[in-house]
Amino acid sequence: MATTEKTLDDLFLDTLKDIYYAEKQIVKALPKMAKAAQDPKLKAGFEKHLDETEGHIERLEQVFEMIGKPARGKTCDAILGILEEGKSIIEDYKGTVSIDAGLIAAGQAVEHYEMARYGTLKTWAMQLGMNDAAKLLDATLSEEKATDQALTQLSVTDNRKAA
Amino acid sequence: MATTEKTLDDLFLDTLKDIYYAEKQIVKALPKMAKAAQDPKLKAGFEKHLDETEGHIERLEQVFEMIGKPARGKTCDAILGILEEGKSIIEDYKGTVSIDAGLIAAGQAVEHYEMARYGTLKTWAMQLGMNDAAKLLDATLSEEKATDQALTQLSVTDNRKAA
Repeated sequence: MATTEKTLDDLFLDTLKDIYYAEKQIVKALPKMAKAAQDPKLKAGFEKHLDETEGHIERLEQVFEMIGKPARGKTCDAILGILEEGKSIIEDYKGTVSIDAGLIAAGQAVEHYEMARYGTLKTWAMQLGMNDAAKLLDATLSEEKATDQALTQLSVTDNRKAA
Repeated sequence: MATTEKTLDDLFLDTLKDIYYAEKQIVKALPKMAKAAQDPKLKAGFEKHLDETEGHIERLEQVFEMIGKPARGKTCDAILGILEEGKSIIEDYKGTVSIDAGLIAAGQAVEHYEMARYGTLKTWAMQLGMNDAAKLLDATLSEEKATDQALTQLSVTDNRKAA
């Protein structure tokens, strides 16, 4: 059976393509989120994360190079759905007292998706003996976690205004 | 401006409908994931989480009741995208040595989406002075986190087989 040949290497490559596509979509979405944000701290947070995201894309390109494959994305339905919900928040809540709370929630859904994927990729890289790749993936994972925590911090102040 | 009237209560209700829809989709997906799993522990894990998910739906119905609104879902593009990716994993990897690793990754993407949403809803419930709702949402959040951790544990053993 041909299908039994599919191994963790295939899964690693498929998932790398998935998150590479996702990061590129996030780069397009973040400026819109920053623009819609009212709290200057939230706006700055999205802008900072845009810079970081460009770094995440570079790290992924290094991982593609390590495994000798061209850096290529593969449509990621999950991120498209998550970002679609963020777009709806902007459409429905722009200019209201609760837009920042909505944007924080949308941002945290993105971060959690990335935390899941980078956590998985890091574990697989270690299992496959690719320690350098695991280190790069772990560096990005740490930044996604830190962004999620920063959004949680902001949600406390911003929700007080919206409630 | 009519839009400025939208408050955190609206956002809370919209997000409650989003996760209610998502949980119902997850109930449909979990038996397929359990069926495709090879490791009996993973299979049992998905089955256990199906029972828990039914409890999460009941808790959400209690929260709808607390705010005097009918329990109704609203299409959640995020979960549809996340589950679509899980479906692709089953199609592409069923019967291969790496199916369990793929299913664990798919399960963790689902758990992370739920952790983001329940974390947000719990914070908002507290801000809105709904302490009983916050407790229910927190109980579910804890179960999602525990499921994610159990999947991480399983990934260590299962990936060793696939690598």
